[in-house]
Amino acid sequence: MPSRTTVSVAQYLFARLREIGIRSVHGVPGDYNLLSLDYVSKAGLRWIGNCNELNAGYAADGYARVHGISALMTVAGVGELSAANAIAGAYAEYIPILHIVGQPSLRSQRQRKLLHHSLGDGDFERLGQMTQGTLSKSVQLRCAKQAPGMIDSAITHCWRSSRPVSIVLPVDMVREAVSEEGLLRPLDVHGSAEQKGVAEERVADAVLAALRTAKRPVLLVGGYNVRFTKQREVVELAEAFGLPVFLSASGRGIIDEEHPCFHGLYLGDCSDLYTAQTVRSADLIISVGNIHSDLNVASASWEFDPRKMIEIRDGLMQVQGKAYHGPNPLGVLRSLIERTEELDRLGMHKSMVAVQPTSTTQIDAARIPPTQVAREPGGMMHGVLRRMSHTLSYRVETAALTHDWLWPTLSGWLRPGDTVIAETGTSNFGIWSTRFPRDVTYISQYVWASVGYSLGACQGAAAAVQDSADPKRETVLFIGDGSFQFTCQELSTIPRRLNPCSFVICNKGYTVERLIHGWHESYNDVQEWKYRKLLEVFGAEPGSYQAYQIRTRGELVSLLQDPAFNKGETLRFVELHLDQNDAPTELKTLTQQLVTRDLPPEKQGTAEPD
Amino acid sequence: MPSRTTVSVAQYLFARLREIGIRSVHGVPGDYNLLSLDYVSKAGLRWIGNCNELNAGYAADGYARVHGISALMTVAGVGELSAANAIAGAYAEYIPILHIVGQPSLRSQRQRKLLHHSLGDGDFERLGQMTQGTLSKSVQLRCAKQAPGMIDSAITHCWRSSRPVSIVLPVDMVREAVSEEGLLRPLDVHGSAEQKGVAEERVADAVLAALRTAKRPVLLVGGYNVRFTKQREVVELAEAFGLPVFLSASGRGIIDEEHPCFHGLYLGDCSDLYTAQTVRSADLIISVGNIHSDLNVASASWEFDPRKMIEIRDGLMQVQGKAYHGPNPLGVLRSLIERTEELDRLGMHKSMVAVQPTSTTQIDAARIPPTQVAREPGGMMHGVLRRMSHTLSYRVETAALTHDWLWPTLSGWLRPGDTVIAETGTSNFGIWSTRFPRDVTYISQYVWASVGYSLGACQGAAAAVQDSADPKRETVLFIGDGSFQFTCQELSTIPRRLNPCSFVICNKGYTVERLIHGWHESYNDVQEWKYRKLLEVFGAEPGSYQAYQIRTRGELVSLLQDPAFNKGETLRFVELHLDQNDAPTELKTLTQQLVTRDLPPEKQGTAEPD
Repeated sequence: MPSRTTVSVAQYLFARLREIGIRSVHGVPGDYNLLSLDYVSKAGLRWIGNCNELNAGYAADGYARVHGISALMTVAGVGELSAANAIAGAYAEYIPILHIVGQPSLRSQRQRKLLHHSLGDGDFERLGQMTQGTLSKSVQLRCAKQAPGMIDSAITHCWRSSRPVSIVLPVDMVREAVSEEGLLRPLDVHGSAEQKGVAEERVADAVLAALRTAKRPVLLVGGYNVRFTKQREVVELAEAFGLPVFLSASGRGIIDEEHPCFHGLYLGDCSDLYTAQTVRSADLIISVGNIHSDLNVASASWEFDPRKMIEIRDGLMQVQGKAYHGPNPLGVLRSLIERTEELDRLGMHKSMVAVQPTSTTQIDAARIPPTQVAREPGGMMHGVLRRMSHTLSYRVETAALTHDWLWPTLSGWLRPGDTVIAETGTSNFGIWSTRFPRDVTYISQYVWASVGYSLGACQGAAAAVQDSADPKRETVLFIGDGSFQFTCQELSTIPRRLNPCSFVICNKGYTVERLIHGWHESYNDVQEWKYRKLLEVFGAEPGSYQAYQIRTRGELVSLLQDPAFNKGETLRFVELHLDQNDAPTELKTLTQQLVTRDLPPEKQGTAEPD
Repeated sequence: MPSRTTVSVAQYLFARLREIGIRSVHGVPGDYNLLSLDYVSKAGLRWIGNCNELNAGYAADGYARVHGISALMTVAGVGELSAANAIAGAYAEYIPILHIVGQPSLRSQRQRKLLHHSLGDGDFERLGQMTQGTLSKSVQLRCAKQAPGMIDSAITHCWRSSRPVSIVLPVDMVREAVSEEGLLRPLDVHGSAEQKGVAEERVADAVLAALRTAKRPVLLVGGYNVRFTKQREVVELAEAFGLPVFLSASGRGIIDEEHPCFHGLYLGDCSDLYTAQTVRSADLIISVGNIHSDLNVASASWEFDPRKMIEIRDGLMQVQGKAYHGPNPLGVLRSLIERTEELDRLGMHKSMVAVQPTSTTQIDAARIPPTQVAREPGGMMHGVLRRMSHTLSYRVETAALTHDWLWPTLSGWLRPGDTVIAETGTSNFGIWSTRFPRDVTYISQYVWASVGYSLGACQGAAAAVQDSADPKRETVLFIGDGSFQFTCQELSTIPRRLNPCSFVICNKGYTVERLIHGWHESYNDVQEWKYRKLLEVFGAEPGSYQAYQIRTRGELVSLLQDPAFNKGETLRFVELHLDQNDAPTELKTLTQQLVTRDLPPEKQGTAEPD
């Protein structure tokens, strides 16, 4: 029996997870993690067993995007590799997931036993090495004495790098006794990494020098390793210097779209006219938290001259073409904020705010539908569709749903505090036309872009909201039918305990792929499912969910105004039927660029092959 | 325009696939393979678009186990990694899959563009390297001139190694012109690898020497890289030397269970008494095509003295403790068969057949249920349940289904030529009690054991049967409910074109995991679905399938005798409801061993953690 001053390795691990605020653990049980699963609920954590490991990985990703960090449990081999795509996505997108991998006993490993879930060659290291390229660290708990230190180091590294880390836990280590001493001291996940030193001041000097001479500077903000580590500083920086803020696709939610500094979404040729003109005519672009992937900046190629760029990010920073290796981005931001008065003395403070749009005519007005609130920074029209009664003057239209009508209309329905998840495809491009109220958490993959991700992420995000201090906030999912089929079983994990609002865009296939190549090809079709009936099949109790089928604009407006629908106490599942040939304008613009990029001009287009 | 003597790279590739008998290609469309998909149907191949890449990989695995080799198409990054578990399984289990990975254009790669589906760092090699550990070869088509040779080499290597190989195809290589000259010569997939030389004769010498002194030799046959490359030779060897054949779990179907040389299934402590005694008292065990994994030989540890073992397999052969690196297993087998007369001259030919079981009392008779045909080598009772009319004397029982009744009963229903797929869990252990008729193709993973595999594999296997010379043969699936949930969407791919008979064991959770640890723990429960209603939700046309819910023995016997059920013209989907606390005896025996292996005695069992 362990003495009073010892705990088991599993107890230590889960106590630490609880300490950093994790309340739900996602994963799938398997031979090599069953023993450790016993300790999850005993540590005051909720076990959410997913239907498969890829979905569990997506769920952990969604949980981390709301809470800041998450935990995933699988088994070595089959489980770890099934989750490989989710972990790679978390790596690409800077999402900190603690991946706890249950492994066969050290005894079996030493004896090179030919176990199942292995390659049958007695080599247990080879499989684990496969995922190393998408982990920022991996610790192997092979010695009880070192286990607490390794666990602590894995957690802090995960948080600080904002990328996945694996903790490999052999079966016979789970109950090994370790000192509980470490648990008496809270884990310092932030640590000295936040401090600013000489390196950070040097970058700040260079940034300030650039700002002094800039006439039209802008702040371009993305979502990569920003939300939990630098969000406050980014907003303070904008406020302190009066910089106009533009958000890239991933950056939505970093600054409120109602904030006076917010000026627009910069999305390459998919930007509105005002934004495109302002950003493209800027003489200094301070980019924070961006990966200039084709989808994040909606351009097949990054278009800006390095001499007018400042890149503040992890690893390599750039100031007008000069590279700085290693300064801490947070330190740089803090240093800049503290030095506002330097520009003040030069009479520049808060004088540099770029011209704000003076009327909506600068925006592509033709695309704003009748029921839609005009673009109005600082406006308070969000949630209006929920607050209006049925007797209001919305014209009940029999017109079919279209993307260019749908997405702006949703602006009036979203509410402050919503968590919004958009699948790669029509949803995460269409949603560029939806204005977000304040305090939105926005979740989508603009680098990894794994199809099917959002349903798992929605489950995880909804769990994190439920675990939070404000559990009544709404989680809203937008996903296409083809994507939904990738991960559909995860819908069955939801109604038992969670109540997000899920919209499935039903248009009979892979619309993104159609736009890239093969518009009429059957390989881009998917089987037509009766999506809304899945919940009954998945064993959801009547009353634990509401399911809808929506085909016209009138039906959707009525639904969005329906108090029963907006109460948010159960899962809502809405089929939105759109024409197979319809797609958001932004998606059409972007995919044309992607096609152009990949083939020489004479071989482009959707022409038949020879 | 290509001249008359050129074809595109894609045309060359798919022409070769067709040449080696592939008729269906599995996969998922994505940005980087759409162009090549245009050429699939033009080459006379059927495109089967799966719901996700893991399922597509499982389907390709199933197709290869029936046809001998298969093709899978995904895209680099998201697709390739989603399929990683399926490819690793194919590697572990010696299944040859040609994995065609669509990649961004070489132009984009050279420019290190920050594309989606990448890690956002411009590094395109890193992701591809992740899967190298589970491929026997990978070719990158980066030069049109070399492409035909590389394609040919990839296909022959895949066949000969009987393991997955990847062919990486960048978008801008798809339509590049290559000489069609290679296509005029058929691809020699077998090649000189079949030839026997000095190295093979040396091993044969050693085996013959061992056989000369052996008094009780047996042949122990597994299924790893045997079915398509050595099956005929294994049977000939048994016949030529009159050796009694025992099959390991993976070996079923290599020799007919009605063949006079077949003596039993060797499954460690799960073997019947006769088999256990005969194999354990043998003084020479010639093992062909085995991986001694815990599940394949149903033992946590391999129990036999190397001094009485001969291992004939790829790579490293062993004859009574002496190692031989590199001889070709097929050459060794052929050499042995040709030298039968050497033993003949010694008067040993066909005299060594071990004692056959003389009565069923040697078998664990208590486990043979009343409706079951007694174990009878060479018997002809298979398919009897299908041929009997309703008026026959089967007692319609109201007793609940149990595993120990179910699996032996199915022996009377299977028919010669069936393809039988059993999921890891209650199914692939329970089926050890089912006798197979002749010409059964048996599919299950006894090394990799990935849960959910069998539904995808069933879809692929059924497609391969349909593509074969005898397309009316039946494909039969047995899968548990927890496993089914991993990959359920693939059921929607089936009714459009295929008609397997699928049995889902419904018992509310992960039974294998319960047996290993946590019998009553909720983490081993799964949500109860209305499985049989999924087909309607998945858009299957009424009439394109039949769905059943079976709870009693009588209901099952009636169903198995129903001519409408046995016509086999549509998909049949049968829920078999078993008690949550029931499990096959074999599974209980084996899992107890696995538990013992992994923990020191004082920490074993399902006791509550401290």
